[in-house]
Amino acid sequence: MCQLLGMNCATPTDITFSFAGFAARGGGTDHHADGFGIAFYENRGSRCFLDNAPCCRSPVAELIKRYPIKSRNVIAHIRKATQGALELENCHPFVRELWGRHWLFAHNGDLKDFEPDLRGDHLPIGQTDSERAFCTMMEGLRARFGTREPEDTELFAAVADMTADLTRHGVFNFLMSNGRCMLAHCSTNLYYIVRAWPFQVAHLVDTDMSVDFSQTNARGDCVSVITTKPLTDNETWTAFQPGELVMFVDGRPQSGRTIEIPEDVRRSNQANLACV
Amino acid sequence: MCQLLGMNCATPTDITFSFAGFAARGGGTDHHADGFGIAFYENRGSRCFLDNAPCCRSPVAELIKRYPIKSRNVIAHIRKATQGALELENCHPFVRELWGRHWLFAHNGDLKDFEPDLRGDHLPIGQTDSERAFCTMMEGLRARFGTREPEDTELFAAVADMTADLTRHGVFNFLMSNGRCMLAHCSTNLYYIVRAWPFQVAHLVDTDMSVDFSQTNARGDCVSVITTKPLTDNETWTAFQPGELVMFVDGRPQSGRTIEIPEDVRRSNQANLACV
Repeated sequence: MCQLLGMNCATPTDITFSFAGFAARGGGTDHHADGFGIAFYENRGSRCFLDNAPCCRSPVAELIKRYPIKSRNVIAHIRKATQGALELENCHPFVRELWGRHWLFAHNGDLKDFEPDLRGDHLPIGQTDSERAFCTMMEGLRARFGTREPEDTELFAAVADMTADLTRHGVFNFLMSNGRCMLAHCSTNLYYIVRAWPFQVAHLVDTDMSVDFSQTNARGDCVSVITTKPLTDNETWTAFQPGELVMFVDGRPQSGRTIEIPEDVRRSNQANLACV
Repeated sequence: MCQLLGMNCATPTDITFSFAGFAARGGGTDHHADGFGIAFYENRGSRCFLDNAPCCRSPVAELIKRYPIKSRNVIAHIRKATQGALELENCHPFVRELWGRHWLFAHNGDLKDFEPDLRGDHLPIGQTDSERAFCTMMEGLRARFGTREPEDTELFAAVADMTADLTRHGVFNFLMSNGRCMLAHCSTNLYYIVRAWPFQVAHLVDTDMSVDFSQTNARGDCVSVITTKPLTDNETWTAFQPGELVMFVDGRPQSGRTIEIPEDVRRSNQANLACV
């Protein structure tokens, strides 16, 4: 499968430290070598850097490590293909526009027998189950709210409902953002940490690198980092429960709900977990 | 205003040579220093690299110059802001999905008093007249063809009709692609060249760099390059006529039509031209 990295912040923050550890897993310390992507929101705009080269030796990943882009919402993904060829069109995050905002989505999992009958507002470009799931959610939001952009609480409830349907098809860990909030769902593996004042030193698992966040951050800064496997070995990461959907706003978890996973799906997901 | 660079090819080709000359105009040999973007199609996928730093000294532009991405359709843009702040959300090319394809659009011009009443299928994220025009065309295509993707000839006719409306608002040089063909429209300034067998040596205007395309290209290769101002000083570029819309397919101009520009708009465009 794949690995996810997300960041949601109170103030624009650069992700170069976390990304350095995460990128090593893209064919270096781990086997997720089938392409990668990272997308940054900057004000209302966003930019998404993709490459179908392994992240650990991609020139695009090298740029990201050296170019500190400050953003309040970031989603990154390293791919270990389960469905869809090793083409750029199958690299996450996927991007669509809705209500005059970019929406980003990245998935770690495997949805089986999932061939939704989409209306045509948002259609997949590649061949992954992940992009089909994203288009299903975008279409669902558009169908539910029409041209009116929902408030965060309405958005959370709608995504929770759609996730409950989608999660019946298999492993569905995902990160989704509209540039204001970050939605994170765990089927099998997802962790988060909130870094706030007083900040501490953090040390990466995947490469011998430390940073003292008390030297780089100010009192009002607050950052949630969400990832498939903890990135640092000297901090306490919180594990999501299977089925847990959390909305992060301004660098902190704001709303949470645990979505029931049917027992047969849960057993199948556990079997899948053994070979991640 | 801005400058445009497009490439449409029979076989995947890298644009590093042309981009090296073009990028120099982004704050180096010319004053288009308000951000840039370049987008590449690769099979069905696309990736768009944006930066709001001046192109001539952007780390993202440096990557593009060193990383030969092979593509059959490329659109690049360097920005001199006329409408919209110096934010990422206002950098071209803009991207939207329609009929399961990415569509790219970049504009050089200035559409005055252009506030379309959009239905909501495709809404602008930034504040430029350019993105409003693109969303108008995407919405127009969706309204005209529904969920059925048109053939190239139908697409050309539809874009010609919509361009005739939009061009009444002012200067509307643009490049648009769906990954199969490239549509190029000239209000004031646009040139193209077709490079085919036997290939020649080309020398850039903006930087002292030459390439012998006979050494890098094969017999079946064919490349059209389209740009606001000719990029080389030893080749013959063809000037578009004001109002000319051309569809490029497989590296060659395929369909063309001259759209009438109302006399008052033509006079106003000429006045604008004096200060480009």
